[in-house]
Amino acid sequence: MTQIAKGIQKITLGNPENHTPESFRRHRMQKEIIDQLPVSKKNDDILKRMEWQISKRGITITLPMNTQENIYGFGLQLHSMNHAGRRRYIKVNSDPAADTGEGHAPIPFYISTAGYGIYVDTFRYTTFLAGTNAERGRSRAMTEENMPHEEFSESALYSLKKATEERRMVIDIPSADGVTFYLFEGTIMEIVQRYNLFSGGGCLPPMWGFGVWYRMYGGSCERDVRNFAAMFRKEQMPIDVLGLEPGWHSHSYSCTYKWSHLFPNPDKLVEDMKKAGYKLNLWEHVFVYPRAPFYEELYPYSGNYEVWNGLVPDFATEEACRIFQKYHTEQFVKKGIAGFKLDECDNSDYNPSNWSFPDSTQFPSGMDGEQMHMAIGTMYQNLIFDIYKAENKRTYSQVRSSGALASPLPFVLYSDLYNHKQFIRGIVNSGFSGLLWCPEVRDCRNGDDLLRRLQTVIFSSHALINSWRIPNPPWKQTDIEKNLAGEEMDTAQYYTDECRKLFELRMKLLPYLYSAFVEYHKTGKPPIRALIMDYPQDSQAETIDDEYMFGESLLVCPLTYEDGTSKTIYLPEGNWHHFFTKETVKGGRYMEIQAAYHEMAVYVKDNSIIPLAAPVQHVEKDTVFELYPSIWGNGDMTFTLYEDDFETFDYEQAQSKVTIRFESGKGLKIERNGSGPHRYHFTGLT
Amino acid sequence: MTQIAKGIQKITLGNPENHTPESFRRHRMQKEIIDQLPVSKKNDDILKRMEWQISKRGITITLPMNTQENIYGFGLQLHSMNHAGRRRYIKVNSDPAADTGEGHAPIPFYISTAGYGIYVDTFRYTTFLAGTNAERGRSRAMTEENMPHEEFSESALYSLKKATEERRMVIDIPSADGVTFYLFEGTIMEIVQRYNLFSGGGCLPPMWGFGVWYRMYGGSCERDVRNFAAMFRKEQMPIDVLGLEPGWHSHSYSCTYKWSHLFPNPDKLVEDMKKAGYKLNLWEHVFVYPRAPFYEELYPYSGNYEVWNGLVPDFATEEACRIFQKYHTEQFVKKGIAGFKLDECDNSDYNPSNWSFPDSTQFPSGMDGEQMHMAIGTMYQNLIFDIYKAENKRTYSQVRSSGALASPLPFVLYSDLYNHKQFIRGIVNSGFSGLLWCPEVRDCRNGDDLLRRLQTVIFSSHALINSWRIPNPPWKQTDIEKNLAGEEMDTAQYYTDECRKLFELRMKLLPYLYSAFVEYHKTGKPPIRALIMDYPQDSQAETIDDEYMFGESLLVCPLTYEDGTSKTIYLPEGNWHHFFTKETVKGGRYMEIQAAYHEMAVYVKDNSIIPLAAPVQHVEKDTVFELYPSIWGNGDMTFTLYEDDFETFDYEQAQSKVTIRFESGKGLKIERNGSGPHRYHFTGLT
Repeated sequence: MTQIAKGIQKITLGNPENHTPESFRRHRMQKEIIDQLPVSKKNDDILKRMEWQISKRGITITLPMNTQENIYGFGLQLHSMNHAGRRRYIKVNSDPAADTGEGHAPIPFYISTAGYGIYVDTFRYTTFLAGTNAERGRSRAMTEENMPHEEFSESALYSLKKATEERRMVIDIPSADGVTFYLFEGTIMEIVQRYNLFSGGGCLPPMWGFGVWYRMYGGSCERDVRNFAAMFRKEQMPIDVLGLEPGWHSHSYSCTYKWSHLFPNPDKLVEDMKKAGYKLNLWEHVFVYPRAPFYEELYPYSGNYEVWNGLVPDFATEEACRIFQKYHTEQFVKKGIAGFKLDECDNSDYNPSNWSFPDSTQFPSGMDGEQMHMAIGTMYQNLIFDIYKAENKRTYSQVRSSGALASPLPFVLYSDLYNHKQFIRGIVNSGFSGLLWCPEVRDCRNGDDLLRRLQTVIFSSHALINSWRIPNPPWKQTDIEKNLAGEEMDTAQYYTDECRKLFELRMKLLPYLYSAFVEYHKTGKPPIRALIMDYPQDSQAETIDDEYMFGESLLVCPLTYEDGTSKTIYLPEGNWHHFFTKETVKGGRYMEIQAAYHEMAVYVKDNSIIPLAAPVQHVEKDTVFELYPSIWGNGDMTFTLYEDDFETFDYEQAQSKVTIRFESGKGLKIERNGSGPHRYHFTGLT
Repeated sequence: MTQIAKGIQKITLGNPENHTPESFRRHRMQKEIIDQLPVSKKNDDILKRMEWQISKRGITITLPMNTQENIYGFGLQLHSMNHAGRRRYIKVNSDPAADTGEGHAPIPFYISTAGYGIYVDTFRYTTFLAGTNAERGRSRAMTEENMPHEEFSESALYSLKKATEERRMVIDIPSADGVTFYLFEGTIMEIVQRYNLFSGGGCLPPMWGFGVWYRMYGGSCERDVRNFAAMFRKEQMPIDVLGLEPGWHSHSYSCTYKWSHLFPNPDKLVEDMKKAGYKLNLWEHVFVYPRAPFYEELYPYSGNYEVWNGLVPDFATEEACRIFQKYHTEQFVKKGIAGFKLDECDNSDYNPSNWSFPDSTQFPSGMDGEQMHMAIGTMYQNLIFDIYKAENKRTYSQVRSSGALASPLPFVLYSDLYNHKQFIRGIVNSGFSGLLWCPEVRDCRNGDDLLRRLQTVIFSSHALINSWRIPNPPWKQTDIEKNLAGEEMDTAQYYTDECRKLFELRMKLLPYLYSAFVEYHKTGKPPIRALIMDYPQDSQAETIDDEYMFGESLLVCPLTYEDGTSKTIYLPEGNWHHFFTKETVKGGRYMEIQAAYHEMAVYVKDNSIIPLAAPVQHVEKDTVFELYPSIWGNGDMTFTLYEDDFETFDYEQAQSKVTIRFESGKGLKIERNGSGPHRYHFTGLT
């Protein structure tokens, strides 16, 4: 056991495996910042009462746990928030059909409200029993018999009197003869910050990444892209990024990474789009078709099974990374492609058995298929990130699988699943584990469902409309068949206008959101997070999985189409101001609110400044935002903005802190410190 | 590699584990019968092209497979029938929410239509990839690019051109350094027979077991049981077995195995019920409450975790078995209890984490929790079976989990799940793996749903109505709340009459069903089975998972309430006679049939004799069935009945074969051979 930073212990049991998330880490721990964080809560019991055993099944660690304890984290969990009393199976799976712990980005990291967090450094499919039964003999003295039965149902039978408040956290790691794990101390927030800083700190995306994204129809050709680019500007729909789906490859399952006949002049397209203020993002996955230019070169550095007829690169070898990086650098990044959508890097138990590679696959690096499934999403992000870093460009990209220690990576998770409530829960939960999650808008039942989903997207880390199945924007037609037939809805104009308002709202919030990400980058504090992180003493907040903090001061309560136009929400103690109606309400209670489909329930914390920008159509290299600080409450308050070039890594040298200060009776004051370029202009203020 | 019987090879790789299904087998292989079975299909390629590797993950076996091959088996699979192209995770789980291979009785045994079957002798959670991708390089020569896309959807993207017809069966066994597996040769039917005979042959339940079962409301007291017993006889509802649910224990989660205050005179109850012609069946599970009489004695022979505050017995120790057996023999079996319902011996990933014991649990025998989860259901059956065997009584009992080599055990699987279509699929699939499955009637939407579900139950191995949640029979009230309130439906009389007809139909079929089980016992041929087993050349039958053979000559096409009153069914080549309307139809085709909710679609194979009995109210020790052989078709035909005491193991010495022979133009002839007692009387025939 070693203390590697304040409030972080490293514990090694037995002989850990060679290939673990740590063995591939590209970002160093931010020790100097961690050491400045307080440890406001401690748990001395945990390690003292730890037990472990190595057997042929692997290594099992047992920790004390009690019935009052809540457990959060485990990566992108779409099915539940508080995992106490549940079994979490940390296995990557694109179709987590039930609440098993599986998902696109399951992570062997959890936070206990008993004042500690644990990260287990392994790629193995680890099971966490977050509260098992007691050990043998603990109930030995129980004597109750012939109790009256009130009803006969499964739940009545299973709800039993416990002899003891004691239970156990059992961590079951298959195959390994040993493992290293880390213990983080503090409150929930401090533990999450420690974990993120241990991982290397939060990512800082370029400002354009926070603009609105539109992924084109899969069958789009070059001309379609140009037409859409022109249409969006003409219709004043703010869009920063256009995404191209599988059709841009000459063969996509598996990939050639070569432009198809639909894109005869791709370089010119990229250039023209750049002039029009659009970034381009390209869909791809890791499975390499025989006609990919680097197939033969990659062959020796790939696994012994194919996927969709393609090679599976072994990114644990330097060669495979280099081959991918060289090609992507020359063909795409240097030519102006702003990012990628890294698809299909997860796995599935429910899809056919030839979906992805077997767990027993052998890779030249010595990794096996199980480890590779858990690793490949993060490795893929790392190699793409490194390209952009080397070119001194920031990217904001997408990925369908991620894992441990991923907080420094500017990639947003997405899913083929589509339950809106689960998507909201994904936002809430992603903040516990250094992940970003996009509740993308895809299919919609109707225009009102579109609005509800878009409202959630606008208040997420990634404002994405993914129209890969429809050739026309969803605000013109939500019905897929009619959209394919080119038929517009009668209400197209209304929904276009409402969507534009939402896009503009997003653009107003860009500087506010950028500040939240700079805080994430510097302190590990997640930009978007569960209420319980900000209100750890509030017992109601323990289970709120459908509201979240968006930055420091905004509390978002998304409604789904299924909710209709009213919902019971919860606000923590204190005054809250409705972001749209300006109405002030008292928190510390549940309340029924009304919101028509085009309206939202977003609340501002009392005594907060929200800097709002005049919405631009897109973010340029030299965009200067016109800022209007809005003041909420009567007390003293401050807000810190950050100015830099918004798109390269020069911020590491040149970034200014702009502090907006409001003192009761004295009004607003702006203070600028640092050498960053001026990117904010305060209208009517000096 | 050793040939252990005709068409059965034993293959041992590495060092197999000590605890495997074979290590606990109580029934010897029926070699002499296996050696008489033909091997009508062979596959010489399989073992020659097998590859295997041992790694820290366990042992992996890879076998050749092609894209034409169908795969059946894997135990009680509720979600699919043909597993080719799927991943099967052989892990016991009471809530198989998705098509993963998990379930109450997953078994590492499959049948390939390529002429072989494999049984892997392990308790490990084994994964079978029934058709992975090809190995690296097989697609290397593919050159297709820029193919036209017709649509953009997930299915369109994933449906790819294969470079090769070749795929692989990958069998991934965790933790083990070695394994023994068995290869069975022949047609599907021969492989299944070989597997069942290898397991010890099919079970032969007592005749009363095939009668109608009624499980009482959980809160029933002694008087309720007496009242129901009287009511059923008065209302002429044939019932053979009454089941008591958790309320009979003085503490049920975990169990005391002691009568509760609701049953002040249990011995007298058993005796009186016996006089009234009822058998009693008791619900229990393995988890032993501190107030159970043998808690302290069992303590040293239990695992190191509790479940529901109770001990988990280690049935791999002789002591734990002896303690359970001694108590059950004296307290229940000797006093006349006819069987048990062995509940909760599976496991769950979806229920809370304290449901059952961790996989890392340690048992005195050296078994771990993972092995025990896969073993305990079968061990539990074995120990109960042994009690009855020692008392020379046959039992027919229930169990919620089973496994490999279970065909000699007269226990029927059931589930808390309740999808009618899945329940029908359970009937179809159970026949591939030596299992019996009960599609029990429990909750019903309404009277018509009750009829539909009961129709399926009547044509299953276990005619069970499970009223544990309702104090009155479902035919009087299907609504649970109203049933609890004692309110009868307006249509109670109609549904009572219709249910009585179905019960009587069941009683008519008893001798026919008994013959099917004797065949199962002697030849391993499943009494109820998929069409593909009887019609292996019929490509349509390959995927029929909602029709099945019930004995030699009846083809059952159950309708669900959701189907309404019509359905498209498939009948194989040949003439078929509607069992109720007598209409003759030509098979080898799909056809739309009509069936009102009280009507059924059951067809008799051409040239079959179905012996029908005059329905009795229950089966007594000396019941003699009045038999009416019904003749279907114009050709020559025979049917074999078996006569014995129908309830002890004396049939091993004293059983007669009664052959009914019909020759065109000559009429019926009855031939009796053997020393069994006369139990069938042929009305109007000599």
